[in-house]
Amino acid sequence: MTRTITLAQGNGGEENRALISGLFFRYLGNEILERAEDAAVLQTEKKMAMTTDSFTVSPIFFSGGDIGKLSVCGTCNDLAMMGAQPKYLTFAVMVEEGFETRKLEKIVRSIKKELAINGAKVVSGDTKVLPKGAIDGIMINTTGLGALSVEGVSVRNLEMGDAVVVSRDIGRHGAAIFAGREGIELESEIASDCASLWPMVEKVIANGVIPNAMRDATRGGLAAVLNEWVEASDVCIEIDEGSLPICEAVSGICELLGFEATALANEGTFVLAVRPENAERTLEVLRSFPGNEMAAVIGEVTDRYPKRVVLRSEWGTKRFMELPTGELLPRIC
Amino acid sequence: MTRTITLAQGNGGEENRALISGLFFRYLGNEILERAEDAAVLQTEKKMAMTTDSFTVSPIFFSGGDIGKLSVCGTCNDLAMMGAQPKYLTFAVMVEEGFETRKLEKIVRSIKKELAINGAKVVSGDTKVLPKGAIDGIMINTTGLGALSVEGVSVRNLEMGDAVVVSRDIGRHGAAIFAGREGIELESEIASDCASLWPMVEKVIANGVIPNAMRDATRGGLAAVLNEWVEASDVCIEIDEGSLPICEAVSGICELLGFEATALANEGTFVLAVRPENAERTLEVLRSFPGNEMAAVIGEVTDRYPKRVVLRSEWGTKRFMELPTGELLPRIC
Repeated sequence: MTRTITLAQGNGGEENRALISGLFFRYLGNEILERAEDAAVLQTEKKMAMTTDSFTVSPIFFSGGDIGKLSVCGTCNDLAMMGAQPKYLTFAVMVEEGFETRKLEKIVRSIKKELAINGAKVVSGDTKVLPKGAIDGIMINTTGLGALSVEGVSVRNLEMGDAVVVSRDIGRHGAAIFAGREGIELESEIASDCASLWPMVEKVIANGVIPNAMRDATRGGLAAVLNEWVEASDVCIEIDEGSLPICEAVSGICELLGFEATALANEGTFVLAVRPENAERTLEVLRSFPGNEMAAVIGEVTDRYPKRVVLRSEWGTKRFMELPTGELLPRIC
Repeated sequence: MTRTITLAQGNGGEENRALISGLFFRYLGNEILERAEDAAVLQTEKKMAMTTDSFTVSPIFFSGGDIGKLSVCGTCNDLAMMGAQPKYLTFAVMVEEGFETRKLEKIVRSIKKELAINGAKVVSGDTKVLPKGAIDGIMINTTGLGALSVEGVSVRNLEMGDAVVVSRDIGRHGAAIFAGREGIELESEIASDCASLWPMVEKVIANGVIPNAMRDATRGGLAAVLNEWVEASDVCIEIDEGSLPICEAVSGICELLGFEATALANEGTFVLAVRPENAERTLEVLRSFPGNEMAAVIGEVTDRYPKRVVLRSEWGTKRFMELPTGELLPRIC
């Protein structure tokens, strides 16, 4: 294969086929993909969940992951948040002419590794090579199809008294990308939280807890999730500021740059609304996964301020947690 | 809404939500999409076909279509070629900061129109806004899920004696894009063949013809399809050069620029391998659709030169039709 990607590798001809078989099929090949023609033929259940997302990140390789891992986690996590087991993924890769082939190979290896964690297969792909300058390196779109294992998990289902649980410390992905991009030197490196959530969701459900709602706190962070929930379920969520799990390095970045950790993106952190009697069991399950040691109950669903998220400080003061606006950290996921 | 797209409209916050509800939901809204959360919940059959494709075209609006129409046709056609009825589509739009909002609206209207022709629904979407210069205008990825209406349509199923049928005159999309891009003045404008094929496939099947193979002749054109078929089915295909339907304007562009019409991309033209006794009926069905008046039997499956496509000239000479290579018309679909 050539050292860098060429336009001819994206034109539907022989070079294109060679790239697909020599790189994508080599790592991601499976029976369905290999028998696929214009489309793959799948065995499905009666009810499936489907979602799509595009990924562009700068830098492409960051502490804790890369765009390949991100593109699997992002889409599989969206399925997992509906209580669906990720089964089939499609990949559409857009790569800039001149991109290093060994970097692309590294990305494909990350994809393979993360798919295995989810137990999902690639069933269809597309590769386009764009002329130098037409895109910035590489973009990946993934669409996922998952089998629903439970029903009714929904942003509309929050109930009075629900405990609001976060699966780990927040803000890592946004902070890691920002530090990587700006070359900020830190005493301890911040790794992105980028991770697949299905194994955690599966274990929570297997332990008899069916959350009323689950959501991964990606773009817009924890603040976006909670604001969406109060709106959709017409409730109030009261959060104890002191209970928010935030690691020191993320706190540091936030102070330095004037960000709120609650507005920073995450890529392997999710929020659950569970009945209060299930909160402890949920925490136990979550904490059994490495990285989730700081899983915490951060607040509760009330009816005090309908459609608002309230942040209660340790000194008893209250303020609203707003939906993030503006151009906060675009292009981080 | 702002006159041009801003970075803030892609960041997961309020502006992003406003763009999604004010533009995408306004035109593409349906019950499934409106109830979708991190993922949409779908009713599916036991066997579904799934495919993905990314679209980037310059110019974005061309004679006969635009990137919106193209992104529906491309993916729905891949499903149709497997004998699957397009049901559910996901859209991932990547748009450059500063893109005109009314152009985006025009594209979304094209999407709506073409979805209706297929009877398909958008069930999940994603919008990313990239900084000026990071992409060239707009790119769209669509993933489609379709319900198989017949089984066994496959590039591996060609049989000795099959008639090879093309649904209309070839090379229009490639020629139209090229003419549009280079500003070539022609006596008669060439419109792209860009069209949805499911209605034609549905009618062919309803008339009792189950093709052994079907393929839309997109990137790489007719030559790519036929070469893939002979390889996969281990047969020879002999094509009568004189029977190839090519309109005058496409012939003109090819002569001018030294292209073969058989290597030019199409976006609403497909090739069928049918038993010879079904050839006439297939032609009748195809010709009943406007634009397909030139549908023709162009050759047959033989065993003369295994894995090769042979072009027989009107003077009795023969040459091989090769798989296109190189950088022929990149970025046209």
